Amino acid sequence: MAFKHITSRDNPVYKHLRKLADNARERKKSGLTLLEGVHLIEAYWQACGEPQLLIIPEGKSSAEASALMQQLVDVDTMMVPTLMFADLAPVASSSGIMAMVETPELAVPTAVDFALLVEEIQDPGNLGSILRTAAAAGVQVAYLSKGCTDAWSPKALRGGQGAQLILPVVEGVDAVEIARQFAGQTLALTMEGASLYAQNLSQPVMLAVGNEGAGLSPALQAAVSLLATIPMAHHDTLALESLNAAAATAIALFECRRQRTAACSA
Amino acid sequence: MAFKHITSRDNPVYKHLRKLADNARERKKSGLTLLEGVHLIEAYWQACGEPQLLIIPEGKSSAEASALMQQLVDVDTMMVPTLMFADLAPVASSSGIMAMVETPELAVPTAVDFALLVEEIQDPGNLGSILRTAAAAGVQVAYLSKGCTDAWSPKALRGGQGAQLILPVVEGVDAVEIARQFAGQTLALTMEGASLYAQNLSQPVMLAVGNEGAGLSPALQAAVSLLATIPMAHHDTLALESLNAAAATAIALFECRRQRTAACSA
Repeated sequence: MAFKHITSRDNPVYKHLRKLADNARERKKSGLTLLEGVHLIEAYWQACGEPQLLIIPEGKSSAEASALMQQLVDVDTMMVPTLMFADLAPVASSSGIMAMVETPELAVPTAVDFALLVEEIQDPGNLGSILRTAAAAGVQVAYLSKGCTDAWSPKALRGGQGAQLILPVVEGVDAVEIARQFAGQTLALTMEGASLYAQNLSQPVMLAVGNEGAGLSPALQAAVSLLATIPMAHHDTLALESLNAAAATAIALFECRRQRTAACSA
Repeated sequence: MAFKHITSRDNPVYKHLRKLADNARERKKSGLTLLEGVHLIEAYWQACGEPQLLIIPEGKSSAEASALMQQLVDVDTMMVPTLMFADLAPVASSSGIMAMVETPELAVPTAVDFALLVEEIQDPGNLGSILRTAAAAGVQVAYLSKGCTDAWSPKALRGGQGAQLILPVVEGVDAVEIARQFAGQTLALTMEGASLYAQNLSQPVMLAVGNEGAGLSPALQAAVSLLATIPMAHHDTLALESLNAAAATAIALFECRRQRTAACSA
């Protein structure tokens, strides 16, 4: 391995890392992205192989980061000043190690019977959480609409905590087309209508999740085959607007999982 | 009403607002806090009455903010320069109106059969989301341990989207004591053990939720009466650590609600 200590922001490798941190187009063009933290880098190593480059800040490394570097002795390592490291990291309280990695391309299963369709989610942390929940629920593929935030940004990867490494993500889709083509029920959550719990979700199902503020687009709402509501408590003094997108998605995906698992074991 | 245009950061009212924005102790001492956004201020007005003061930035107000101000004609209004407004607001993309309000004190019901116990949640947005989900699930009281972030910070209020105005929140409790005293099951989620779905959750139940990273303290884990797991998908290539705290809480609280509602209607 090579170890380099870089102190100039004009260093071409550092400039490239900055672009990878900030720019979805650069990530797509190069097929590379950045991971932050021991946990995510270990998950990548386990699922996809070695990273291309490790990046650490000047000063003493954490015990976990040091242990990881010793295991990845063949990987080039670059040390940068603390502030230059902070400019690459997606969160302030970074665990003190990042990695440049090839963006994995996971194959979409040929027969999908549990899918997620995400339309126009804007916040990378929200998208990451939703993908993490989907992976835990056993979703087989996540389709992201054109207007969605990039699933491979450092913030989305951090929110996903490894979900993007095991759950195939197909970006830039036409959401209405995907909903129409899916061979099974397409489910969207609404504020009114029949209860989610009254639906048969043990058959092939795709959940469509909309934008944090606006919800599903009218076109996608018209294209789904099943509208259902998560029944909420009634409050006399105040009508709560709704659950947030990540919470509603978690409840719906795990209700699907509960029914599907029960159907399998019955 | 009085309308004042303040441009100095040394203005004593503005200095007090800054303290309310940043400082939990000041909020407790004065019994006041700040709300951000038309939606939250409307919710407060509906549930608790008029705010004490409206704060708006210089420049053109949004149509929604103007409409709200016209409805609240008796409330004093303070206009401040944009940057001074931004220093009060919990988020960058503020909707252009804030309010100083009395912190409501909601009575805890005498007979509680569905409760939440939150231990050491650090992130105000996470706490707000969890309270929002709890209010939607019909939880009757939320107990927050001593180490929890303040439920009345502008960020936690924003995350709660009105939940703190309808769900009684008891702060600074001894979590172990509360778990021991609860007249019913106390439930905690773990990574292993019996399935959540195999539990009878239609009886009195309190869910204990732990810190984002560390989970429940060993003392609280020992004090609860029921440990259960949310069954997750198995992945050959990678063991996902867990759902995040907010998603796991949403799934567990709505499984409680599903069983409790079914029991009522049976």
